[in-house]
Amino acid sequence: MSYECLICQIKSLQQRLDKYEIPEEKRDRIVSDVLKKIAAIDLEKSYSPENTRNILAKLKEHSTVEDPYREEKENANHQLLSRYNEFRELVNKSSDRFDTALRLAVAGNIIDFGPGNHFDLEETIKKALTSDIAVNDSKELREEIKKAKTILYLADNCGEVVLDKLFLETIAHPNVWYAVRNEPVLNDVTEKEARAVGIDQFAKIIPNGYDAPSTLLHKVSSQFLELYNNADLIISKGMGNFEGLMHENNPRLFFLFMVKCPVISRKVGAAKGELVVKRSKKLTL
Amino acid sequence: MSYECLICQIKSLQQRLDKYEIPEEKRDRIVSDVLKKIAAIDLEKSYSPENTRNILAKLKEHSTVEDPYREEKENANHQLLSRYNEFRELVNKSSDRFDTALRLAVAGNIIDFGPGNHFDLEETIKKALTSDIAVNDSKELREEIKKAKTILYLADNCGEVVLDKLFLETIAHPNVWYAVRNEPVLNDVTEKEARAVGIDQFAKIIPNGYDAPSTLLHKVSSQFLELYNNADLIISKGMGNFEGLMHENNPRLFFLFMVKCPVISRKVGAAKGELVVKRSKKLTL
Repeated sequence: MSYECLICQIKSLQQRLDKYEIPEEKRDRIVSDVLKKIAAIDLEKSYSPENTRNILAKLKEHSTVEDPYREEKENANHQLLSRYNEFRELVNKSSDRFDTALRLAVAGNIIDFGPGNHFDLEETIKKALTSDIAVNDSKELREEIKKAKTILYLADNCGEVVLDKLFLETIAHPNVWYAVRNEPVLNDVTEKEARAVGIDQFAKIIPNGYDAPSTLLHKVSSQFLELYNNADLIISKGMGNFEGLMHENNPRLFFLFMVKCPVISRKVGAAKGELVVKRSKKLTL
Repeated sequence: MSYECLICQIKSLQQRLDKYEIPEEKRDRIVSDVLKKIAAIDLEKSYSPENTRNILAKLKEHSTVEDPYREEKENANHQLLSRYNEFRELVNKSSDRFDTALRLAVAGNIIDFGPGNHFDLEETIKKALTSDIAVNDSKELREEIKKAKTILYLADNCGEVVLDKLFLETIAHPNVWYAVRNEPVLNDVTEKEARAVGIDQFAKIIPNGYDAPSTLLHKVSSQFLELYNNADLIISKGMGNFEGLMHENNPRLFFLFMVKCPVISRKVGAAKGELVVKRSKKLTL
């Protein structure tokens, strides 16, 4: 991970101390401890979302708040669900249903309470439907979906999950697994929120066994890992999952996300705010 | 200092790495080192501007940039100097010349490239001339200026120095020392910029012997300290000087600044953006 990710994580710290309702008298100590811990890590060998997870775990130790982003998560799901029929109609009336549903699903990735806190959903959807996808392997994705017997879909955030549902309804694949975080972390989807929006109508839900805002293969459950290793196609949503899996070099893996920060922008060669549908590099044999 | 100051200093780090033109390949290491260092400090016994100074000194070690804020400093001085006659007329036409010059001098403190980077000088001056001063010991300050044989004026930022000059012209005291930073640090005034705007027409300039964006009595030169100890009145401009001297409990000392962050806001009981003219607490004998 980059030093920029470290700075970004510390930038978010004040807001997160508030979210976890950490008592004032504990904050000096906790912030010092957090800084000590993250100053010691080897950046080259570390994953940014794992570090975020460890910082949040530290706050959790000193907090009585069960799920600090519960309200935001419910609001985002409620807001998007109330427009489900409108979005579905948009898909059904479009000349290319797959393309429209895909763009909406990626645009949904703008709903995030990590870095880049402010977003305009309306503007984002409009842009997603009319602009070029900056990195675009969607043709290959379409082919792989047709061929795949088993699809593993790695979820990201609440709100976004509703547009994932529409995408899953659109591709109408008979064997999709929808992987969620094991426990609440930021506004990421857990089993509870996935069920609440009805993902289970179109996919089987599986918790990934860990509570990082990412998919970290050295931390997930063996059950999840087995599924990951055997799925014909893995669709990974969001920057957090990308950061955990970007070195995988696995052609079964497609990354779908919106670029939200300069580090990822440089890594994929797309500007902030642009859509990415990127196949993980093919294995060189 | 508060944990909030630590977070704030790290928030500024990215921009400062750029300002000092630190090579990309050195940044991971430098940021880790900076975090290690500031994670280890005892917050209760530390001064925030001293910590800022130490972070900047670390960047300086790896930089070839002599004075990263040179351009901003020159621009701010140039911009304010070009309006000197306009401001002077404002003072001379006002019903209370002292009060108007004082308000302008404090309003000038908005010109800052530390925390709270964005400012609207026009709006600030307008507000300063028409709103109440939130913490207002200016009556006592006026009396003390009349009585003082020697005044020590602790400078803060460039741009602001021009309004200090107008204040000094207005009080027309025969024996004022204007103390500046020894070396460039952020946009703080050094001897060079103080001379460039003609402070020496109304005061003797003295470098304070250190390069923190503050006045740290355990770090300043003995020559400066002697002056500090013997002056009848000390006028301290800006939040940085306040942070260095707020525990002094010295009735010879008046703090003039604009509140720019929540930590200082709570400390003085005035909102962000408000003007403060505060006498250091009287000694309880």
